[in-house]
Amino acid sequence: MKKTLGRLALSLLPLPLLAAAPVSTAEKMRDEALAGDKVAWDIVEDLTTEVGPRLAGTEAEERARQWAVKRLKALGFHNVHIEDATMATWVRGAETAEIVSPFPQRIVVAALGGSGATPPQGVTAQVVGFDSIDALRAAPAEAVKGRIVFVSHAMQPNQDGSGYGYYGAVRRSAPAVGAQKGAVAVIIRSLGTDYHRNPHTGLTNWGAVTPIAAGALPIPDAENLERMLKRSHNVTMHLILTPRFVGNTATGNVIAEVPGTDPSAGTILVGGHLDSWDLGTGAIDDASGVAIVTAAARRVMEAGRPRRTVRIIWFGDEETGGAGSRAYFAAHRQENVVFVAESDFGADRVWRFVPGFAEANKPLADRIAEALFPLGINRAAGEVEAGADLGAWVQAGSAGADLGQDGTRYFDYHHTPDDTLDKVDPAQLRQNVAAWTAMLSLVANAPESIAKLPPRPARRQ
Amino acid sequence: MKKTLGRLALSLLPLPLLAAAPVSTAEKMRDEALAGDKVAWDIVEDLTTEVGPRLAGTEAEERARQWAVKRLKALGFHNVHIEDATMATWVRGAETAEIVSPFPQRIVVAALGGSGATPPQGVTAQVVGFDSIDALRAAPAEAVKGRIVFVSHAMQPNQDGSGYGYYGAVRRSAPAVGAQKGAVAVIIRSLGTDYHRNPHTGLTNWGAVTPIAAGALPIPDAENLERMLKRSHNVTMHLILTPRFVGNTATGNVIAEVPGTDPSAGTILVGGHLDSWDLGTGAIDDASGVAIVTAAARRVMEAGRPRRTVRIIWFGDEETGGAGSRAYFAAHRQENVVFVAESDFGADRVWRFVPGFAEANKPLADRIAEALFPLGINRAAGEVEAGADLGAWVQAGSAGADLGQDGTRYFDYHHTPDDTLDKVDPAQLRQNVAAWTAMLSLVANAPESIAKLPPRPARRQ
Repeated sequence: MKKTLGRLALSLLPLPLLAAAPVSTAEKMRDEALAGDKVAWDIVEDLTTEVGPRLAGTEAEERARQWAVKRLKALGFHNVHIEDATMATWVRGAETAEIVSPFPQRIVVAALGGSGATPPQGVTAQVVGFDSIDALRAAPAEAVKGRIVFVSHAMQPNQDGSGYGYYGAVRRSAPAVGAQKGAVAVIIRSLGTDYHRNPHTGLTNWGAVTPIAAGALPIPDAENLERMLKRSHNVTMHLILTPRFVGNTATGNVIAEVPGTDPSAGTILVGGHLDSWDLGTGAIDDASGVAIVTAAARRVMEAGRPRRTVRIIWFGDEETGGAGSRAYFAAHRQENVVFVAESDFGADRVWRFVPGFAEANKPLADRIAEALFPLGINRAAGEVEAGADLGAWVQAGSAGADLGQDGTRYFDYHHTPDDTLDKVDPAQLRQNVAAWTAMLSLVANAPESIAKLPPRPARRQ
Repeated sequence: MKKTLGRLALSLLPLPLLAAAPVSTAEKMRDEALAGDKVAWDIVEDLTTEVGPRLAGTEAEERARQWAVKRLKALGFHNVHIEDATMATWVRGAETAEIVSPFPQRIVVAALGGSGATPPQGVTAQVVGFDSIDALRAAPAEAVKGRIVFVSHAMQPNQDGSGYGYYGAVRRSAPAVGAQKGAVAVIIRSLGTDYHRNPHTGLTNWGAVTPIAAGALPIPDAENLERMLKRSHNVTMHLILTPRFVGNTATGNVIAEVPGTDPSAGTILVGGHLDSWDLGTGAIDDASGVAIVTAAARRVMEAGRPRRTVRIIWFGDEETGGAGSRAYFAAHRQENVVFVAESDFGADRVWRFVPGFAEANKPLADRIAEALFPLGINRAAGEVEAGADLGAWVQAGSAGADLGQDGTRYFDYHHTPDDTLDKVDPAQLRQNVAAWTAMLSLVANAPESIAKLPPRPARRQ
């Protein structure tokens, strides 16, 4: 890889110097990871190069599973295996969009995951624009019927990634709302924060509504369309989107273990997801996540057999429905899982630690916070999420923690063709591995027992 | 247009405060432009929205000419008209690229201007990689014959845009070199400095060589291919590129004038180009250029009839062959053109002024330099280029000047789908108009005569 200005600029982001000598095994392991971890980078580079895009349920995801088994075995993990699941698999088709009048020009579009299809020759219809999903919801059906609905929003970049939750409703729900009002198609301003001609795909939810064609415009195209709609009440678009469901196919989770010495102390689950959207090579979403947790678990293994078993799970089908995590939880929910944590928010530096332990385990949470502080990581209040893949365990009462990454630029690349290796900064990736190593080492070897919490309801999307 | 972080960040780029009260008409006009020019922004916004991409020789370029005539008349210019020319017109076809083995995945590609075509079903061949065009030149034909040649390079961003000249040979010449050695296709690392999945197109030159398929990969794809070539000596690609020449069609230059009071004092030509590549909407290349020179000329007109006629030319076919500028020079070379200047390097701030006057006109050059200094613009030595459209006049002996823009990010967007309105910073655009207004006002009203220079040979590409 060539050194580039972009890469150099990222490497110059401030990472803390470690002023004091490390006082514990976990701190020593943390500093070694920060100084020189190579395992995580190699996983990200090799997976994105040798497999590349790996849409859930496709042959590419199957190749990714085989790749993962080989890599996890080569890293020396135990009990490396695949647990199969099945899923209804959606694949992209043709996608073109063109303003027919009054300002003829091609624009860029990509289908949202789960989108229905136009006829092969496409649809031509008037575009009706809304500034928000609420405006669409409030519109009478006659303003929408027979038209192509365009929905915009005001999402901005934030360090904590907030905005995606709120504005996410535009992607998740606007197509179904439009369909119910008789729209022929719904296109949205991409849920993104960049100004590149790369659309942001992602799953849309239909509930009981019959799917129609649903796509995302890159932000420059969305703003161009907004300008056209300001100039003319009769903007006509020709849209072709021909994705389809190909039926039930195989997905699966790839699993590896660091065996513990004390089965009675319970199991730790750490993970990310192996599948990616089809447009990019899935570097930040989520080769980085599986790489970070795997590199940290390997450091724990190399330091000597821990008290608790650490189980690594590279989930299948996180992006297009969650068949992998559902299958895993269903098969293993009776096991004594005492702690879970997920990495699925890129590879920029971890800046906050959200502990989710029972009150009795406050001393353990304190030890972790202390080990993370020299990495520039603050303890923060909040509810642990543990993400789409491991959240069910937290809801069922397992302890857990979030190591929150800086999301300022995450939604520049998320779900776009631009999710490629060059977006990963090696120095920040190592800081992630260092943080995970410290946390995992402390939790896996904690002499106290790790208590369960009361079950809590699932967070609303 | 919504305020965005990207836009805000750009707006915060330092623009100089004007400390001293303006002492001349030109300086007063400069400051008014800097404070509030709207003409240039409106041209860029309206042209990129209402016409969008406008590839030379196509119906879209014809629509752009009609748009330009209407706008230039509405702005109050005189003698607004089109001067026709004809050109051999090339249009893009299908374009897909896929690594077949050993790491199957789609990659992004765009044909270079003037590219030949693969068969409709494409070609499948082994990829042979070269780090530079010199390495390709040195390779024996048997290393290339029957293969897809990939050529990389080390272009980096520079404020003065240097790098494009040197590394430009990869795009301009590598396809012909590969064709001569029997390659079935040539693909290059885009001549760009960004890390987005947007290929940089641009003209390639064949000379007497029969064209083959020639394309550019976005930099993330090029680096991915480089990684594959490091891992395997047998990387196979399936490539479809089906552009074609559609025969001779119309192009043309759109012309407008600010009439002068003294025909004997000679004419001033200022311009940019109206056509754009087809992938973006041609905001920085070159809606900005025509907007800047036009807004400045209008300020000169509004200030009262100048001594010299200022003629604005929005050239056709700058990108794909130069039929517009050739036709213009051939038709008008006998006229007394005393000064020329072109804007065709985006809309970031002007940072240097390269004067190209005869020694006798040093006082005029000094007055211009003095008026530009408060805008943060330095006088620099060097040979005036006046660009592809007006360079012939400088070579023939007209005085001229370059107002050099900051090109640090120009090659992030140049010739890509990403050349869109959001890449133009309104504050920097106004600084351009201010600089041009000051220079044009001083040259158009200079009481001294403006001398010719000795003809000089064309600069080598």
